[in-house]
Amino acid sequence: MTRSSGRFIIAVDAMGGDYAPDEVIKGAVEASRDSEIEIVLVGPEETLHNKLSQYRGSDTSVRCVNASEHIQEGEPPALVLRQKRDASILVATKMVKKGEADAVVSAGPTGAVVASALMVLGMVEGVERPAFGGTPVGITRDSILLDCGGNVDCKPEHLLSFAVIGTVYVKNLMGIENPTVALLSVGSEEGKGNELVKESYPLFRNSGLNFIGNAEGNDIISGKANVIVCDGFTGNVLLKFCEGFGSSINQWLRAKLAGKLPHDERDEICRELFSITNTADIVGGVPLLGVNGNAIVMHGRSRAPLFTSAINCARDMVRSGFVESLNSELIRTRRQLKNVVD
Amino acid sequence: MTRSSGRFIIAVDAMGGDYAPDEVIKGAVEASRDSEIEIVLVGPEETLHNKLSQYRGSDTSVRCVNASEHIQEGEPPALVLRQKRDASILVATKMVKKGEADAVVSAGPTGAVVASALMVLGMVEGVERPAFGGTPVGITRDSILLDCGGNVDCKPEHLLSFAVIGTVYVKNLMGIENPTVALLSVGSEEGKGNELVKESYPLFRNSGLNFIGNAEGNDIISGKANVIVCDGFTGNVLLKFCEGFGSSINQWLRAKLAGKLPHDERDEICRELFSITNTADIVGGVPLLGVNGNAIVMHGRSRAPLFTSAINCARDMVRSGFVESLNSELIRTRRQLKNVVD
Repeated sequence: MTRSSGRFIIAVDAMGGDYAPDEVIKGAVEASRDSEIEIVLVGPEETLHNKLSQYRGSDTSVRCVNASEHIQEGEPPALVLRQKRDASILVATKMVKKGEADAVVSAGPTGAVVASALMVLGMVEGVERPAFGGTPVGITRDSILLDCGGNVDCKPEHLLSFAVIGTVYVKNLMGIENPTVALLSVGSEEGKGNELVKESYPLFRNSGLNFIGNAEGNDIISGKANVIVCDGFTGNVLLKFCEGFGSSINQWLRAKLAGKLPHDERDEICRELFSITNTADIVGGVPLLGVNGNAIVMHGRSRAPLFTSAINCARDMVRSGFVESLNSELIRTRRQLKNVVD
Repeated sequence: MTRSSGRFIIAVDAMGGDYAPDEVIKGAVEASRDSEIEIVLVGPEETLHNKLSQYRGSDTSVRCVNASEHIQEGEPPALVLRQKRDASILVATKMVKKGEADAVVSAGPTGAVVASALMVLGMVEGVERPAFGGTPVGITRDSILLDCGGNVDCKPEHLLSFAVIGTVYVKNLMGIENPTVALLSVGSEEGKGNELVKESYPLFRNSGLNFIGNAEGNDIISGKANVIVCDGFTGNVLLKFCEGFGSSINQWLRAKLAGKLPHDERDEICRELFSITNTADIVGGVPLLGVNGNAIVMHGRSRAPLFTSAINCARDMVRSGFVESLNSELIRTRRQLKNVVD
């Protein structure tokens, strides 16, 4: 999907995040140096213009669109979105709906970003709630685990939709043809697992996806499959466990290496270990997968470089035609399963 | 619980494990040097006697009891236990039932050890299936996560029984008074979690246990609570994830430190990292918690030192009166909940 201008228009919620708007603007200006990217900063126009004027020479591909309000951490998303009709996240998301932008990026409160996306863009057919894909450990390449987010109580058809989402994500954004798919379980053989996994197994086998069976906890690291599917409860616990584990191993290693290595070498190893285990802090943003439009939600504590990389991620999603591919693949899977049943 | 002899009698399945009987005997002889421990090796008596005769001077506290058969990896446990009535694991477990031993230790196939325990000893009232307690990361002291094992589909009352089991375990075996208990979830506030966690929350709050609310994935590492409770699916995935993660971080670190540290220093750090992340390989055995008798199941690949430590673990369980304490605490919890309802 490309515009006649050849540019991808990314609407950025300039008021979202702990360091908004300064770090947002800085990151957006940096991202706009890419000739494929055009940025629309959404927020109080005058303030944004003033701040933007510090960055001379880069103003050609950064525009501002006014939004007089914004949503703060702790405000109940559904309620506040109805009250603050001019909230920056809402205005930015509506630009995507109206075709004025190709994607929205925000570091505002996750609940508000998700609620805006649901309200304004809706979900693609066959997916109920947005899924979050995660790469718990940076050592594992070409592999994602999902759902790591909001879908804590799942039915087999939800797991199947994650499998389709993951397949399209890995294919379109990691460039892997025919990605392998596995179900996370407590044993590799068919028949091992909880009720959810056991009921999902035949659905996966008949889906036409490249399903290779069950994966166990350790297989997440070895990258047994490109797409590893689990309910959002298990995925979320795993992702947070990994972050805590990484931080704690980091401290341990720092102490172990004290006095044995020069400071800078030790720091480099520890920094790398942190980035391997806290992938969310490195990536900055995650796409709301399954939403009928491109939306990226970021950590509130993100600084400028993470805004740049989240905007780049949005560009990649648009360029790869993620939402269109997802729709096609979901239709294909439904037909395939229908044929098996008939 | 002490015998008139002042010794704890541990029945050891001499034929269980990949290196049986040699490594079993070696480990058992070593454990028998503890004046509190009396070992009964269960297996083909003549073979065991011959092998035991190599260890002079230690024969006073190691006896043999004959069992002509044993169960191999891959044999269907329930079926084979009915056919092989003289299987070593069955004979050893029956000794506990008859009061001829205080505990049974086996590195035989897990399914067979669990099935023997269920068949011969049964469960304490209020617990349906044995739970496995795990310490995913060795950095975390004074804390266990359970269930990490067989209970993949749980109801709130199962989670509560894990909480009681964990409380008694931590109290009796780690010497912690009034252990804190948390429910593993996707957010720390009440109301966050899947249906299972949300339904369990009020049960936990009214149980009279020292319940401190929800814990998240990272809290497992920080040891937010002494007892962290989850369903066996989540616990098992976490434990295996941690093992895989540890092995993989270990390789990464070994490569990073190559040429930067002397070989022996590097090996020591990497060895320690392995033992932090693969606690199951270090501990050797885990008690079948909730069984109405003391039973320890070990990894099949265990060598002599792990048999020694598993036997010591059995001794500690017996000495602490674990099963009796568990029965009392379960009765207390049931009464407490009944009072809340009435």
